[in-house]
Amino acid sequence: MWPCYISFIILKIERKIILNNYKVIIEYDGTNYHGFAKQPLYNTIQGTLEQVLEKILKEKVTVFGSGRTDAGVHALNQVVNFETKLAIEPISLLKAINSNLPLDIVVKDVETVDNCFHARLSAKKKHYKYIINNRTIKSALNRNREMFCKFPLDFLKMQSAIQNLEGEHDFAGFMNTGSVIKQTIRIIEEATIKKEDGIITIDFVGNGFLYNQVRIMVGTLIEIGRGNLDVDIIEKILENKDRKLAGRTVDPQGLYLVEVEY
Amino acid sequence: MWPCYISFIILKIERKIILNNYKVIIEYDGTNYHGFAKQPLYNTIQGTLEQVLEKILKEKVTVFGSGRTDAGVHALNQVVNFETKLAIEPISLLKAINSNLPLDIVVKDVETVDNCFHARLSAKKKHYKYIINNRTIKSALNRNREMFCKFPLDFLKMQSAIQNLEGEHDFAGFMNTGSVIKQTIRIIEEATIKKEDGIITIDFVGNGFLYNQVRIMVGTLIEIGRGNLDVDIIEKILENKDRKLAGRTVDPQGLYLVEVEY
Repeated sequence: MWPCYISFIILKIERKIILNNYKVIIEYDGTNYHGFAKQPLYNTIQGTLEQVLEKILKEKVTVFGSGRTDAGVHALNQVVNFETKLAIEPISLLKAINSNLPLDIVVKDVETVDNCFHARLSAKKKHYKYIINNRTIKSALNRNREMFCKFPLDFLKMQSAIQNLEGEHDFAGFMNTGSVIKQTIRIIEEATIKKEDGIITIDFVGNGFLYNQVRIMVGTLIEIGRGNLDVDIIEKILENKDRKLAGRTVDPQGLYLVEVEY
Repeated sequence: MWPCYISFIILKIERKIILNNYKVIIEYDGTNYHGFAKQPLYNTIQGTLEQVLEKILKEKVTVFGSGRTDAGVHALNQVVNFETKLAIEPISLLKAINSNLPLDIVVKDVETVDNCFHARLSAKKKHYKYIINNRTIKSALNRNREMFCKFPLDFLKMQSAIQNLEGEHDFAGFMNTGSVIKQTIRIIEEATIKKEDGIITIDFVGNGFLYNQVRIMVGTLIEIGRGNLDVDIIEKILENKDRKLAGRTVDPQGLYLVEVEY
């Protein structure tokens, strides 16, 4: 979260030339990917995008995402950027990328942006959504797009508990090990839950989220709904920063990166 | 559409014993199936259900569906029935079937019914839904669950035209060859279209539908929306019974069998 001008200076020092910087909004179905971040030997969103761009642009391309999403997690409007020596009309680039991408990744928008724009470093706000099917029977059509929870959930308890997540807190207790992040204070601006026809939708808007934070917050809310944890557990986890007090990391397929604001 | 008692007598003559008849409601994602109807060498919904039931019941089972759905077509509440010598608690049967089915087919309800109940012959009404993505960009997440149409569609023209499909008509002009059906008069009780956020949803409720009828009706409405066919073409097709006047058979993945009434 460096100020823009610092990124800009670093970019200038690094590359010595000003390249064309493209901001790209993508939707993807995470089911068949090992997450966003490139990994050798695995199918990833970043890896697939870089491959397609390198084929089109005929140069080495590095794609920067607003953040990683895990295997199975979806995105409605993930934002990435990349730089290239070539100057291409955004609409032509959009069409070229889409005609080369597999059908489970789609570019929704391309625009040229200032070189100081960086999908991750410039991000100000993120919106995540989590969907729980709390009916008695799993859905065949949504099997890869929601989490199934057959246990009755006390919605009012969950609604009461979720409010304690709003605000500026140290969310270390809601972070899984495996993250190198040291600064674990984040602001959640909005944390809301609604239920319609047995489908529970939980929305979080914040300035950033730690590794697995959304899935652990949802896992904790589910345990509260089931009656296995008290409503005030959220305050205790925030205070004690103890991952062991929180619920499990719920399934990835219920999670959607909805939007990134800059 | 024989009266129940005739089916019942035929059943008695055929089998000489009264078997247990189960009515089963299923949801399926048609993407990975060659349609509902059993075919040798192909993965089908009926074939998969029969395999699972034969494994559970350890006897030969024939599954009757309320109707066939084509490859790629989905069902939210398809109804099937089958008979077996075994008397099993519906809830136990539901659990046993679901734990043996692949995740893209789910049994939502099982009940014991009178022997005269037949999923196809007893059906009184069917509800189909068709979803068109009329935005500028395809959806990655819904790629197997909606038809994509990038051309601007005149919604008011489509809304005006669809009303001509309601009522009792000879729908022969909206039937693809390949059907052995001779009696092509059907009643459409409700034909409605709505548009929200670039997504067009078309609903048909009727006493029965001919082979590919819904997809041809939707294909015709799309040509009307694009301005390639006049609003009054529907009346002409109904009058002349000429398949060539109608639009194309649109993609299967936008079609859902929503409900069957008895």
